[in-house]
Amino acid sequence: MSYEMIVEIQGGACARALAKQRVRRLRTAWKTKRVVLCGVLLKMACCGGCLCCQCCCNEGETRTPEELTILGETREDDDEILPRKDYESLDYDRCINEPFLEVLEGLDNKKAKKYEAIKWILVFAIGVSTGLTGLFVDFFVRLFTQLKFSLVGQSVEECSENGCLALSLLELLALNMMFIFISSVLVLIEPVAAGSGIPEIKSYLNGVKIPGIVRLRTFICKVTGVLFAVAGGLFVGKEGPMIHSGAIVGAGLPQFQSITFKKILFHFPYFRSDRDKRDFVSAGAAAGVAAAFGAPIGGTLFSLEEGSSFWNQALTWKVLFCSMSATFTLNFFRSGINFSKWGSFQLPGLLNFGEFKCTDGDKSCHLWTAVDLAFFVLMGVAGGLLGALFNCINKRLAKYRMRNVHPKARFVRVLESLLVCMVTSLVIFIASVTLGECRDLVSTTNNNTSTQGSVNEEVNSTIRRFFCFNNTYNDMATLFFNPQEVAIHQLFHQNATFSPVTLSLFFVLYFFLSCWTYGVSVPSGLFVPSLLCGASLGRLVANILKINFHMQIYAGTFALIGAAAFLGGVVRMTISLTVILIESTNEITYGLPIMITLMVAKWTGDFFNEGIYDIHIHLKGVPLLEWETEVEMDKLTASDIMEPNLTYVYPHTRIQSLVSILRTTVYHAFPVVTENRDNEKEFMKGNILISNNIKFKKTSVLTRAGEQRRRCQSMKSYPSSELRNVCDEQVVVEPAEEGQDILQQMLERRYVPYPNLYPDQSPSEEWTMEERFRPLTFHGLILRSQLVNLLIRGVCYAENQSSASQPRLSHSEMTEDYPRFPDIHDLDLALLNPRMIVDVTPYMNPSPYTVSPNTRVSQVFNLFRTMGLRHLPVVNAEGEFHPVEDRIHHAGMDGLLRNCATGCRVDEAFTMDDLVDSISADTSGLRCGHVQLRIVFITPIVGIITRHNLTHEFLVAKLRQHYITI
Amino acid sequence: MSYEMIVEIQGGACARALAKQRVRRLRTAWKTKRVVLCGVLLKMACCGGCLCCQCCCNEGETRTPEELTILGETREDDDEILPRKDYESLDYDRCINEPFLEVLEGLDNKKAKKYEAIKWILVFAIGVSTGLTGLFVDFFVRLFTQLKFSLVGQSVEECSENGCLALSLLELLALNMMFIFISSVLVLIEPVAAGSGIPEIKSYLNGVKIPGIVRLRTFICKVTGVLFAVAGGLFVGKEGPMIHSGAIVGAGLPQFQSITFKKILFHFPYFRSDRDKRDFVSAGAAAGVAAAFGAPIGGTLFSLEEGSSFWNQALTWKVLFCSMSATFTLNFFRSGINFSKWGSFQLPGLLNFGEFKCTDGDKSCHLWTAVDLAFFVLMGVAGGLLGALFNCINKRLAKYRMRNVHPKARFVRVLESLLVCMVTSLVIFIASVTLGECRDLVSTTNNNTSTQGSVNEEVNSTIRRFFCFNNTYNDMATLFFNPQEVAIHQLFHQNATFSPVTLSLFFVLYFFLSCWTYGVSVPSGLFVPSLLCGASLGRLVANILKINFHMQIYAGTFALIGAAAFLGGVVRMTISLTVILIESTNEITYGLPIMITLMVAKWTGDFFNEGIYDIHIHLKGVPLLEWETEVEMDKLTASDIMEPNLTYVYPHTRIQSLVSILRTTVYHAFPVVTENRDNEKEFMKGNILISNNIKFKKTSVLTRAGEQRRRCQSMKSYPSSELRNVCDEQVVVEPAEEGQDILQQMLERRYVPYPNLYPDQSPSEEWTMEERFRPLTFHGLILRSQLVNLLIRGVCYAENQSSASQPRLSHSEMTEDYPRFPDIHDLDLALLNPRMIVDVTPYMNPSPYTVSPNTRVSQVFNLFRTMGLRHLPVVNAEGEFHPVEDRIHHAGMDGLLRNCATGCRVDEAFTMDDLVDSISADTSGLRCGHVQLRIVFITPIVGIITRHNLTHEFLVAKLRQHYITI
Repeated sequence: MSYEMIVEIQGGACARALAKQRVRRLRTAWKTKRVVLCGVLLKMACCGGCLCCQCCCNEGETRTPEELTILGETREDDDEILPRKDYESLDYDRCINEPFLEVLEGLDNKKAKKYEAIKWILVFAIGVSTGLTGLFVDFFVRLFTQLKFSLVGQSVEECSENGCLALSLLELLALNMMFIFISSVLVLIEPVAAGSGIPEIKSYLNGVKIPGIVRLRTFICKVTGVLFAVAGGLFVGKEGPMIHSGAIVGAGLPQFQSITFKKILFHFPYFRSDRDKRDFVSAGAAAGVAAAFGAPIGGTLFSLEEGSSFWNQALTWKVLFCSMSATFTLNFFRSGINFSKWGSFQLPGLLNFGEFKCTDGDKSCHLWTAVDLAFFVLMGVAGGLLGALFNCINKRLAKYRMRNVHPKARFVRVLESLLVCMVTSLVIFIASVTLGECRDLVSTTNNNTSTQGSVNEEVNSTIRRFFCFNNTYNDMATLFFNPQEVAIHQLFHQNATFSPVTLSLFFVLYFFLSCWTYGVSVPSGLFVPSLLCGASLGRLVANILKINFHMQIYAGTFALIGAAAFLGGVVRMTISLTVILIESTNEITYGLPIMITLMVAKWTGDFFNEGIYDIHIHLKGVPLLEWETEVEMDKLTASDIMEPNLTYVYPHTRIQSLVSILRTTVYHAFPVVTENRDNEKEFMKGNILISNNIKFKKTSVLTRAGEQRRRCQSMKSYPSSELRNVCDEQVVVEPAEEGQDILQQMLERRYVPYPNLYPDQSPSEEWTMEERFRPLTFHGLILRSQLVNLLIRGVCYAENQSSASQPRLSHSEMTEDYPRFPDIHDLDLALLNPRMIVDVTPYMNPSPYTVSPNTRVSQVFNLFRTMGLRHLPVVNAEGEFHPVEDRIHHAGMDGLLRNCATGCRVDEAFTMDDLVDSISADTSGLRCGHVQLRIVFITPIVGIITRHNLTHEFLVAKLRQHYITI
Repeated sequence: MSYEMIVEIQGGACARALAKQRVRRLRTAWKTKRVVLCGVLLKMACCGGCLCCQCCCNEGETRTPEELTILGETREDDDEILPRKDYESLDYDRCINEPFLEVLEGLDNKKAKKYEAIKWILVFAIGVSTGLTGLFVDFFVRLFTQLKFSLVGQSVEECSENGCLALSLLELLALNMMFIFISSVLVLIEPVAAGSGIPEIKSYLNGVKIPGIVRLRTFICKVTGVLFAVAGGLFVGKEGPMIHSGAIVGAGLPQFQSITFKKILFHFPYFRSDRDKRDFVSAGAAAGVAAAFGAPIGGTLFSLEEGSSFWNQALTWKVLFCSMSATFTLNFFRSGINFSKWGSFQLPGLLNFGEFKCTDGDKSCHLWTAVDLAFFVLMGVAGGLLGALFNCINKRLAKYRMRNVHPKARFVRVLESLLVCMVTSLVIFIASVTLGECRDLVSTTNNNTSTQGSVNEEVNSTIRRFFCFNNTYNDMATLFFNPQEVAIHQLFHQNATFSPVTLSLFFVLYFFLSCWTYGVSVPSGLFVPSLLCGASLGRLVANILKINFHMQIYAGTFALIGAAAFLGGVVRMTISLTVILIESTNEITYGLPIMITLMVAKWTGDFFNEGIYDIHIHLKGVPLLEWETEVEMDKLTASDIMEPNLTYVYPHTRIQSLVSILRTTVYHAFPVVTENRDNEKEFMKGNILISNNIKFKKTSVLTRAGEQRRRCQSMKSYPSSELRNVCDEQVVVEPAEEGQDILQQMLERRYVPYPNLYPDQSPSEEWTMEERFRPLTFHGLILRSQLVNLLIRGVCYAENQSSASQPRLSHSEMTEDYPRFPDIHDLDLALLNPRMIVDVTPYMNPSPYTVSPNTRVSQVFNLFRTMGLRHLPVVNAEGEFHPVEDRIHHAGMDGLLRNCATGCRVDEAFTMDDLVDSISADTSGLRCGHVQLRIVFITPIVGIITRHNLTHEFLVAKLRQHYITI
């Protein structure tokens, strides 16, 4: 249809009058057709919506795990995306090890205050920088958009006389596609810059490290990309990317500072940790929200809502300050640049909703009344439904893209962006030119103009008059052929009316186009398109109520509530969104209606699917932790969900073992344990009877070995052929000293917290179950990065030296490479002496939070999420007797005595006399006691819990397993 | 002076003209004198301030614990108030024991949703009730105040003509003192209703149970009392009491509901726990703030800031909803009642600041500019200083009251209230009548009237014209002779000016009077007086800047900032206060100046002393937990601060032991532990050598016994003479089964999680240290209330029965008596059979959060505060070898062998042959192994940490001790 029209228009060089006539003719023809079109589109939308909702609804879990188990059904989500295991987690817990304590020792109150002051300065700097980033984006978007619209608008005005509308369209297309091309290419450089960035920031604040999201390159691509994407006329907002940009500033600035002013900050190496970085990222993200919406409190609440950490007054106060700085930096410069009023603060955020107010003289006008609340609830339901539909369609699209677009060459993504851009531009142009209606500027359709307050001059200055004369304006063009912020202002504050048909058409077109757009490879926010969609819907409701039911309402409020309802239905944010919207309107009395609408929209939407950000997080396979576990999950305990398949290190380990462990496993943390390895091994091998009995009886008892057998999870491992050679070297064990020396040794040992044990073989996969079933004492947790660091810096000592001779690393040396620690595979093995021993005890975390195996999942979850942990050891603090009793009983007395004696010597032909001999000799008796200790001592560590053991999917799977077993 | 004047006026019956003349004469005389007076007062204030600040400053800690230790100084705070130990704590952690799991088992998702829905309804009900409470207070305060002021005002107007001012004064005095008398008597009924209630609510949300603060009686006294206190003209606000009232509603309503609709809620006995109650109290307190200030977001943040618990999205969302409900309920009814506009929402909170705005036409008017920020910072400093002075004086006063007023008869407090009331009334009256200046209504002193916006009719309707004619008004009377809210409005929005002298006088009088008032025995808020004080100061600054420096400023903003500065200096709240003030002004652009002012005021004030609420909490001796520990505290570990002096119960305990434990200790929780008691005791008694060695060497080792000796804290105990008889009964120990039976027993025991141990003697104070130095296995924690409940409900089994025969209690039976559980001393011992055994394992908390002894204090503190714990067991999860090695080494080989043998029989004349014999016998060998187990097994529980071990005072003391020992 549009094509014909263009051809027709293009057909001859027409005189001005002729063109006008034609356009008018076209438009009258349309007037009937567009109603039909509108009906068809709406019907399509409805049907599609129903179908989609249905399928989305089916996708959701309608049966509980219990029911599923009982019914014997298996879920057939062939394209179900499970959380991926290759995301690294952040650690919010502090590792208070010896280097840290050294720093602490040198820290008095004065230095602590200095450090605090530096934090405040940094937070201020983050706020200001984020504000300036917002200013940069805003300035150039404004510049390009003005340029574009004035150019094309002028051309249209001219062409409406000359009949060269095709030329205007080409102009528009060329400009838009150029902008989008730049934006899309920028995203090619750094793919993580695509989209709004909120899912990524949400994941980061939740504690998942997503590669590249807080890099400088991402920042540049994101900021420049979003600028061109918005200028290119796509239905995208700049608010989401602002939040991402703010977060990057937060992550980068304190790190940069500490590199540049290394000398000043040398004694404050605190910022080089996940904990501090995450704090600054929260501040940055909050500043981003604050700059985008002029909502400092909303920003703070956003980072709290997403940032999962415990409520920390000092931090929140800093975050609020950061948000304030961002808002008012932006405000200061925008007021200065736009109004030339330097020093006044009049333009708070990138997006603000203008002032909702009745005229002073009009006493009967209310922004809203109690009666309106009922409509707001209904609008909330509608918003929730439409939002769910939006999310559903977008999810399908995203899945389609993942399957069909992402595997292909990268330029295909650019082509997609350009396609979207072209379609959008065409729709904008054609709708503006042909689908609009001419409406009177001061509305005459109803007589209550006085109730709508004074005509806002600013609003009226942005109307479009395409083909409309005599104090009328083209309503469709006003909405489409303007920047989105202006369109929102129009819907909120324009006193003149928009025709219902225009509003419906606008909504449908916008809905589908913005749904298509979110996910193409450009930086793209979702707030503004959603608001605009919702506002048109709200305005439609207001129109109907006003004209058909003659109600005295304030149309702007309905538009606002419609916007809130749709946005709420799409993003499903709660507290922070309420506050952001209240702050954007600068009207506290809108609190209740906005809150109720958002609440209803969220509840309605949650009935069908998740919020759009959660959907995209889910599609990425990020192991996000929810807010709380479901009540049912408390049927599980820590032992049900923990990972029992652990790899340990010893307090004093040979380098060859460490390298082997690091190269053959992918774990990020290793429990540091002690055991009397060499004796133990021989004991195990020498007592087949005992081993068999253990094998047989162990199931009734909770041990690592038991857990392990029950699950048999495969352990991913790197091929490590080159290392095998190193490990397979025969190691000569030095003979143990005899007699007095042992006594001497023990005396010394008493004052050493971790007895020097030299294990020569690392725990490996080839071990039998029995080999793994050993009593271990848990001493602490050491991270992979710390171990690699120790190896690289040559922290080790020779066998014949004491561990005190090991070089000591300072805290700053330990954290110098943060956050990109070297990989074990980058390590030059030739430089290492595999026989040297590393004492890891000063560098491990000696007191991580732990839970006991029978702790309920909700408690584990709360601890883990609230404290922002990365690894949570499950420790058998109760110290059950079972495993030992087991052994004693099943091994019989012989076994027991053998146990007692193996400390002295291992002998299959063991007699009672030998035992008595060994006991009567003092030194060997001591040893015997020592062996007893070891055997008898209960395994204190039984497993470890990480983020992956607490994701919803994992818990559901475990719960099903639980129902099957009982 | 004032007395003379009254006499003079009273002297003759004067004609109207004469009276006027006299008054004028008096006033001209005053005009010179009052400047002098004002100067003197200000100088006094300054000097007093300096002195007070100095003394307050000295009171604060200027030296670090380290310095104190080095210098050998001891703090001589003879009147230092240390946290009291008799406050009970709240427990925010859930106790997931067997009754709870039973409930959980019966809980499917549908029921969980129903339960959630009930929560929402309750939260809504709390909001509405709080709003209605606010409405009630507001309505009657308004009524009484209007009555009073119209009566007295009329009388003054008349008397200014007739010269009967004394009569007016008497009228005022009579009315005020009547009101205050009622208010004061109400507080006598429930003393906890005095004051603002914020310190108490803060303590409650922090986790300290203060008796009586959430009772219905307190509610009634508080609400009615504050009504009369405000109506009585005291310089008190109704905002603080509103917060307290809201909190009581929150605490009471869900409990009430569950009593009334017991049948409906029978299966949801969740609300009967500290956790749920505290959630509802947060919601109620937030609703209180929301109703008081019309600040729902501020209210939510207030309860978060004070409520220490972790950030929980679902809860916060409910709290916000509750706040919104409260605000808009109040708004709805006030709009309806005051403006007869039902359905509109125009009067948000009890206190609101009116609209700050420039006139539409005036483009050069700004609420504030960047230049003003510098003044705001200075005002922040001033506010901080004055606030510190206020707090300092108030602290002295409160201490004086504690020493001299509180010990006396109760009616003395009523007399004090009446005295304060009388002085206040006199000051109000005399200042209004004599100290005012007549100012022109539309200010003519400067020419920039146009910059101040349209004259607010409402503001001008509340001026007082005492003795002023010709379109002038009496500025002092306008401030003093009006409700405080009106005075605040005057200072914020009155375009006409107040004379600087009036403002200074007003400030000084108000400052000292409100300082005196806060703490007398009436319900009294502090917000409004502080705001009024600060606003007068801010207005003074504005006056000076405007007149003396001819700056173009908006005076209202300065008054607002002054109010914020002073209030911030007094209460030192941060985030929530910022948001409350922003919401009260309904002007988001005030965010930055308010925040900066509050920040500066807080920092300045913190230099001298604490906030007023913290001071009063401190004076009450509440063991409040701060936000974070100081960095230095990380030099301490959990073992340094824990309480090692524990009293245990066994999984299966005789009733007589339980009663004895409960009657002789005051602990609220008891670790449930197992040990092999009878063998152990004999072992200990039979081996003096070992014991002595242990005594000698134990100091180098971390054990309970070691800790105990190091501290020797006295254990409070109730006299328990009647129980002695029960306990002293000779108990016949049944002989242990021999031979095969033991094997059989062990076999059975293996499948029972807690072996049935029947200890016949409770751990008592008379035990020697060695008796306490036993290896114990930690199984869980049981509360005193739970134990008493078990005893009262007769949960026990006879010796010859299995523990399965013990009656089972449901979760609702366990929580039925919440929150006032019966005391052990109410228990009728005659009903109990002391030989019966109680199996506590189903009712204990089997998996409380624990920490290891070498966890750093900051980690312990975070866990404790964030999770809202009440008891945190310190468990030796690392399982150190030391104590055992110690024994082996020091006892020598003989001791070791004896250890091994004591399981078989105790014999001082022990020979090697005996040992060999005992080992060769199968059954005794088993026993031997078992004994070894026990001895060798490390003590897993070494102490417990409660709130009292984490208070600032305790930590500082421990840190000093730490410095002394190293």
